[in-house]
Amino acid sequence: MPVVTVQMWKGRTTDQKRELAKAITDAMVEHANAKPDGLHVIFQEYELQDWARAGVLGVDRKDEKP
Amino acid sequence: MPVVTVQMWKGRTTDQKRELAKAITDAMVEHANAKPDGLHVIFQEYELQDWARAGVLGVDRKDEKP
Amino acid sequence: MPVVTVQMWKGRTTDQKRELAKAITDAMVEHANAKPDGLHVIFQEYELQDWARAGVLGVDRKDEKP
Amino acid sequence: MPVVTVQMWKGRTTDQKRELAKAITDAMVEHANAKPDGLHVIFQEYELQDWARAGVLGVDRKDEKP
Amino acid sequence: MPVVTVQMWKGRTTDQKRELAKAITDAMVEHANAKPDGLHVIFQEYELQDWARAGVLGVDRKDEKP
Amino acid sequence: MPVVTVQMWKGRTTDQKRELAKAITDAMVEHANAKPDGLHVIFQEYELQDWARAGVLGVDRKDEKP
Repeated sequence: MPVVTVQMWKGRTTDQKRELAKAITDAMVEHANAKPDGLHVIFQEYELQDWARAGVLGVDRKDEKP
Repeated sequence: MPVVTVQMWKGRTTDQKRELAKAITDAMVEHANAKPDGLHVIFQEYELQDWARAGVLGVDRKDEKP
Repeated sequence: MPVVTVQMWKGRTTDQKRELAKAITDAMVEHANAKPDGLHVIFQEYELQDWARAGVLGVDRKDEKP
Repeated sequence: MPVVTVQMWKGRTTDQKRELAKAITDAMVEHANAKPDGLHVIFQEYELQDWARAGVLGVDRKDEKP
Repeated sequence: MPVVTVQMWKGRTTDQKRELAKAITDAMVEHANAKPDGLHVIFQEYELQDWARAGVLGVDRKDEKP
Repeated sequence: MPVVTVQMWKGRTTDQKRELAKAITDAMVEHANAKPDGLHVIFQEYELQDWARAGVLGVDRKDEKP
């Protein structure tokens, strides 16, 4: 532990995830004294029809992009 | 916030999700005083081999349908 | 199944949760053809210091109330 | 309830999940007095680029295999 | 990884969790070829008013006990 | 969206969470093009008896501290 789960729109590249995993791990080590060895970062990606805000699916919103 | 996560069998149409997102959002506003702007509804869909009840996978149950 | 998880600020009464559970269950039955018997609704409540939006904890925001 | 969620690398067969679901359900009944009827086991599978340990994605680690 | 999350009623003793963690870890090693070192088991406990089945909170059901 | 959930041992101060929420939000904006307004960071804290690694509860490990 810890485990950090990132839920976001589909579409980030592996390289973006690589940078995110590093930056989030660094933040956890710096601000929460986490030991990197047991620290997990998990990415869950969602399609636009699988996430709604204010009752409106991403696929129906004009301001949302993957 | 709040965030409402719905885990269910794969197979609902985008239109069903649209209606669900609206109905759940309305329920949260009416019964929990939630403000819609920050209210998220997330759908996670599962295959029949990825969910067991009473120790039996959906793919092995006769009463389960997607 | 399905399982619906509601994450929200701490402070709703048991009666509000009772109404929410009913309304969300009804929505799942009506719009997703869910069978009520296996349908679970789970509430997770959070303190104001345990949820941030736009990088700011609830405890530091003036527009957030439990 | 209860609900047991298993997050793991992609690649287990349906038969492995079948054995896992049985074994986990048995463990819950034996050690937690759970009733099997309402006991759910959910599998979530992840690609190697969607899980990092110690800040390094599975796809970049030599000791990780699906 | 993997991460196994157990959501259940409040009330199990530390000793029951100790046995559960061992049994679930053994099941993951035997049936999913998991390596124990990175294998996490997380317990989340819920009050009777925070979990509903079939639209009825645990606190209102006669067949549910912690 | 996105939603970032941090699961860790109990014991961080509100100030540590404040710094973590900022740093994780910055990482999401920089590396994932996330818009801060809809970006949530959620903290879940666990007691030592509620998290096992390698089949051993935190309360039984000598190398784990909150």
